[in-house]
Amino acid sequence: MNRERQVLARIERVRRRKPVVREELITLAHGAGGKATHTLIEAVFLEAFRNPLLEPLGDGALLAPAAERMAFTTDSFVVSPLFFPGGDIGDLAVNGTVNDLAMCGARPAHLSAGFILEEGFPVADLRRITASMAAAAEAAGVTIVTGDTKVVQRGKADGCYITTSGVGYVEQPVTLSAAGVRPGDAVIVSGSIGDHGAAVMLARDDYGIEASVASDTAPLHDIVAELLKALPEQVRTLRDATRGGVATVLNEVASASETAIVLREDAVPVRPEVTGICELLGLDPLYVACEGRFVAVVDGAHADQALDVLRGHPLGAGAAIIGSVAADPQGLVLLRTSFGGTRVVDVLVGDPLPRIC
Amino acid sequence: MNRERQVLARIERVRRRKPVVREELITLAHGAGGKATHTLIEAVFLEAFRNPLLEPLGDGALLAPAAERMAFTTDSFVVSPLFFPGGDIGDLAVNGTVNDLAMCGARPAHLSAGFILEEGFPVADLRRITASMAAAAEAAGVTIVTGDTKVVQRGKADGCYITTSGVGYVEQPVTLSAAGVRPGDAVIVSGSIGDHGAAVMLARDDYGIEASVASDTAPLHDIVAELLKALPEQVRTLRDATRGGVATVLNEVASASETAIVLREDAVPVRPEVTGICELLGLDPLYVACEGRFVAVVDGAHADQALDVLRGHPLGAGAAIIGSVAADPQGLVLLRTSFGGTRVVDVLVGDPLPRIC
Repeated sequence: MNRERQVLARIERVRRRKPVVREELITLAHGAGGKATHTLIEAVFLEAFRNPLLEPLGDGALLAPAAERMAFTTDSFVVSPLFFPGGDIGDLAVNGTVNDLAMCGARPAHLSAGFILEEGFPVADLRRITASMAAAAEAAGVTIVTGDTKVVQRGKADGCYITTSGVGYVEQPVTLSAAGVRPGDAVIVSGSIGDHGAAVMLARDDYGIEASVASDTAPLHDIVAELLKALPEQVRTLRDATRGGVATVLNEVASASETAIVLREDAVPVRPEVTGICELLGLDPLYVACEGRFVAVVDGAHADQALDVLRGHPLGAGAAIIGSVAADPQGLVLLRTSFGGTRVVDVLVGDPLPRIC
Repeated sequence: MNRERQVLARIERVRRRKPVVREELITLAHGAGGKATHTLIEAVFLEAFRNPLLEPLGDGALLAPAAERMAFTTDSFVVSPLFFPGGDIGDLAVNGTVNDLAMCGARPAHLSAGFILEEGFPVADLRRITASMAAAAEAAGVTIVTGDTKVVQRGKADGCYITTSGVGYVEQPVTLSAAGVRPGDAVIVSGSIGDHGAAVMLARDDYGIEASVASDTAPLHDIVAELLKALPEQVRTLRDATRGGVATVLNEVASASETAIVLREDAVPVRPEVTGICELLGLDPLYVACEGRFVAVVDGAHADQALDVLRGHPLGAGAAIIGSVAADPQGLVLLRTSFGGTRVVDVLVGDPLPRIC
């Protein structure tokens, strides 16, 4: 009995130790739900994301809804490489979901994070990613309140995939809908386009191009809140221009509203470095992803006011009116080129840039 | 101009066609956010999950919170193989998140679904999975209201990974917490354990064992609601016994409540086929995952009543009181074996069953 007590006391001492991940690489055991999973969760995830809602580490988090309307969204992130100039998969995963909530007119509040890790993934890289997620969450004023981790065998993933979901509260009396867009509205973009896509492409060794471009990944809830506060009834719809770029987003808007969107090529803000990279790779910047830019369609009579609000915010310094909404041809996006011609800007076909987010 | 009109009219006709996925295998273009992604979303996901909240296909879904307390949860699913006796990754992903919400005492309401697909994955398999998700969602009374799809290159995933997140509403005045467990409480399991893990293992060709075992994957919100209605103040905590099994869940409870949990081996319900498989593979059924069973710790004075409620529900026919809570040794789970001995049931170490869920 004395021996049994000693054994129990030893088990207890081991258990009460502050959890430390001693392995340098992720193993399948980290995904098994047992001791290694607990250690990983406590030493890495809880350490990075600590907050009262997450801390019970239950099957879910309990929230108190803070408004009568709530937005709910999800996004999986498989960007390659995981680290690139201006960001990494961690802040991308937080900002991406924060931005989806912002585009619904919601104040982002709580995020979940599901990790799919490849056996052999360096724990140091995971710590770097979670630190980046924690910093992005703090910057966006959200808490990561629940999560999950799975580990798959070597060769069954590519390091780390992250799925974030989010809930946010719609506190302003706005109705945002692409279907509400009408002729005479103005199309505004909050800054230069294509930076994220160009930065990720350059970070891949494949191309051997050198240029100074960084991802624009950023949380858009604050600039959106300012816009909606100033023009609660004049903003028709908001869309962040991620995969498929501005062209794809505007095609969706034109289609939903049965209007035509007419862009002026010389009004679309594109950084010269991004133009250069796109020319080298045969891409049109209108299709290249941004992760910190959005398109706002607003009542044409208030376009200048909207522009002033956006430009007054650090994330909207490069905002520009890039076009307007017409009645015909319904459902199409047209571009008036700098040479005076007009071409149809169709939805993206194929995948010029796999795994950009 | 006439020619331009004809071109526009043709584009328009193509666009208005009912979307059809013509490819038999998933391509990178299905994840690019453009035309192929839209077609996949409309022809496969929207077709399977159609509901008014999903239909706008916006950046997120707008919900009206239905109670003052809300549960929020997420789980990634990487089960291998994707199809197994009794279920597939689709109903597993829906039931898993439904059950996490149920364990919080919430009525599951809305789910999100994030897909990470491997290039070359058969579209027919994806349809089978989404049909299974739709059926599981309908059975559980939840709607899938928002989602996301990414495609990674061949060899960077294993067919299909799914991350579901969920929101649910806590409508009953319950307080569930592992920390609230106290000496004298009873430990109940809602049915035989280990069926899911055993079924998935057998579905892998590796073992060459033949036996008739099916996954127990099932939505637990209804049986949980009946239990909480009958005993709102006597149920201390609820945990679904997934990865790591009953042993791991009970270790978490013992640790959080600083109590001891004493199990009676002969009271733990295990189907003979599952016992047989576990013996062949050198596994302890206490560590094998269930996907439609949960552990309830209830006030000892109401244990029989709880058992009656559970057994009165189709998903609780095999419910059993498997042990009780004691004051010492704090934080440990002990098993009184059929031979009269006692052994410590520690947290799972290593991963005997990778990718069980």
